Amino acid sequence: MRGALSAGRRRTLRERLHVVVLAGGAGERFWPRSRRHHPKPLLAVADGKSLLAATLDRAHRMTTPDHVWIVCGHEHAAALRREARLPASRVLVEPVRRNTAMAAGWAAARIAAIDPEAVLVTLAADHRVPDSAAFARACLRGARAADEAGALVTLGIRPTRPETGYGYIRVGAAAGPGFPGLHRVRRFVEKPDSARAKRFLREGGFLWNAGIFIWTARALLGEIERCAPELALALRPLRSAPRGVASPRVLASAYRRAPAQPIDVAVLEKSRHVWTLPVSFRWSDVGTWASLAEELGLSRAGTVTLGGPALFEQSAGNLVWSDGRPVVLFGVEGLAVVDAGDALLVARLARSGDLRRVVEALRHSGQEDLT
Amino acid sequence: MRGALSAGRRRTLRERLHVVVLAGGAGERFWPRSRRHHPKPLLAVADGKSLLAATLDRAHRMTTPDHVWIVCGHEHAAALRREARLPASRVLVEPVRRNTAMAAGWAAARIAAIDPEAVLVTLAADHRVPDSAAFARACLRGARAADEAGALVTLGIRPTRPETGYGYIRVGAAAGPGFPGLHRVRRFVEKPDSARAKRFLREGGFLWNAGIFIWTARALLGEIERCAPELALALRPLRSAPRGVASPRVLASAYRRAPAQPIDVAVLEKSRHVWTLPVSFRWSDVGTWASLAEELGLSRAGTVTLGGPALFEQSAGNLVWSDGRPVVLFGVEGLAVVDAGDALLVARLARSGDLRRVVEALRHSGQEDLT
Repeated sequence: MRGALSAGRRRTLRERLHVVVLAGGAGERFWPRSRRHHPKPLLAVADGKSLLAATLDRAHRMTTPDHVWIVCGHEHAAALRREARLPASRVLVEPVRRNTAMAAGWAAARIAAIDPEAVLVTLAADHRVPDSAAFARACLRGARAADEAGALVTLGIRPTRPETGYGYIRVGAAAGPGFPGLHRVRRFVEKPDSARAKRFLREGGFLWNAGIFIWTARALLGEIERCAPELALALRPLRSAPRGVASPRVLASAYRRAPAQPIDVAVLEKSRHVWTLPVSFRWSDVGTWASLAEELGLSRAGTVTLGGPALFEQSAGNLVWSDGRPVVLFGVEGLAVVDAGDALLVARLARSGDLRRVVEALRHSGQEDLT
Repeated sequence: MRGALSAGRRRTLRERLHVVVLAGGAGERFWPRSRRHHPKPLLAVADGKSLLAATLDRAHRMTTPDHVWIVCGHEHAAALRREARLPASRVLVEPVRRNTAMAAGWAAARIAAIDPEAVLVTLAADHRVPDSAAFARACLRGARAADEAGALVTLGIRPTRPETGYGYIRVGAAAGPGFPGLHRVRRFVEKPDSARAKRFLREGGFLWNAGIFIWTARALLGEIERCAPELALALRPLRSAPRGVASPRVLASAYRRAPAQPIDVAVLEKSRHVWTLPVSFRWSDVGTWASLAEELGLSRAGTVTLGGPALFEQSAGNLVWSDGRPVVLFGVEGLAVVDAGDALLVARLARSGDLRRVVEALRHSGQEDLT
């Protein structure tokens, strides 16, 4: 079919656009609602939809359902595939976790084998972007730049607060007259402390690195060859597999030798062809119960409720997720109260970034079945 | 049988001793573990036993099971009787609530009709006294004074802290050479503010009024005649019922006209024959989740657990009552987390004295079935 098309007109950008959804994380910071076999992308916190379903909705604004892919671990594959309603052929199941560089690289290799002209929008399964129209417009604009200039494009979110939980992008010179709004990336900045984050916001020229990447498969694989030789070596047998489908043995061997690095560190920080498109839509990585609460509009005086009924007396600033049974708060503030049916969490929202410790403690105390 | 006995030797004090357990309250401050049909005396917080069962254990140290009585409201009668394993004849079911003066008066009238020489230990169903041996010894000592001197005896707990949640007894002169340790009551003091409570503790001569009363049926009924004519009038048809068993119609009529007053206010504060026996055993009225937590040994650093399993990380000073499903606390302090299966409460312990508001709010919002 590709042959038939390429013999006629060149396919449009949208016809060559694929969305790669990275769903590698477990989301232990959302215990007890996220579990080993029920990872964070399945959390139904996006107006009743799961984060994954909302991500796929955004993907479908850019491309057809048959151009959507998921990369995930084997322990989550069945559940994620069910939720995404994808055929097994478009769920790339990693035999072990190797962070996003290998995940994005494998997806590029796999898709390039069947669509060498593919343009890939690579993003996380578990972020929240309420304005999907603005999101799709920005991705398509980035895709045009990636397609025409061969750049690795990362969307950069204009910061609205001195957030210390995100990495930043230092904006460089304009990309050029053909690409209005796009800029070169001067450098990537690790999560800053509070003082630096405030300075970034004051000085301007810094964007949040949202992990939304747009590149052609060809450009990414080329930059991997140049910037990340170890990764390139691991990917080689996958690239040469017929139609990109490697045997389990070949896949396992490739993953064993792959470095475990984020794609930012492995490639983007080293490449000279990285651009950014500053955008202003609301975005969150929904990293903790606290940030979820904020995303859902928690105010100091208010309370955010998910699931079943809740009643509040002399209480404010809490997030409640009931399992159907009524939850009553009395005289409490700043808590996450999460009932998952078989376990209940009461946590201070401000400390929810450390919730992993609870999961570890449960495992140490022989209650792994709850994690 | 009584005739046969009285024709022979006079019965001993212990043979004439009855225990009257007042179980009139609902205990809304223990929601969601106490409910309309599951009142506070049924809470299983006394080493796995209910408060009522522990109270009956103490009663059985003083007298035989057939001399134990319960006075309660009709909405709780079935559940309390089941827990106490008492025959219906010894469960005095009040048609409406009229506070403790009427409850104690009716019990005295009922028991006097079948045992005119009865000595009554009248106490609450839902207090906690860990040392039942000391408790029984004190009651028997008080019973001897009540029996021999006709006094209305109230046990007075030596205060261990400037508690503002209890009424106090101002100790008067020694009762007399025949009754070492017993004192006249100079006056009853309403719950004091913090400054007064501290002064009471500093000056000495003040005891907590624990609502543990010892009198002969005859003396109480006599003092009711003298000090509480309205109450006496209400009791008259009950006293003249054959063997003290009034018809439902007579009972309802008596209760309709009875004043709703505590026995302290209706009689003890007015009588000139009130004595107190200062005691030092540990006692609590277990009035709130906070006082229950304290009774169960909650320290600032610790956590008290009832019911199922619980896990704590970076948390202290909490009371957890699980319904079997694990409860996990993370980074929280000073909370009551109470899972009752069909409803969950998360409350600040320090505010648990106002928990009634939650029950009211549930009723106002049409969720009376949860109360």
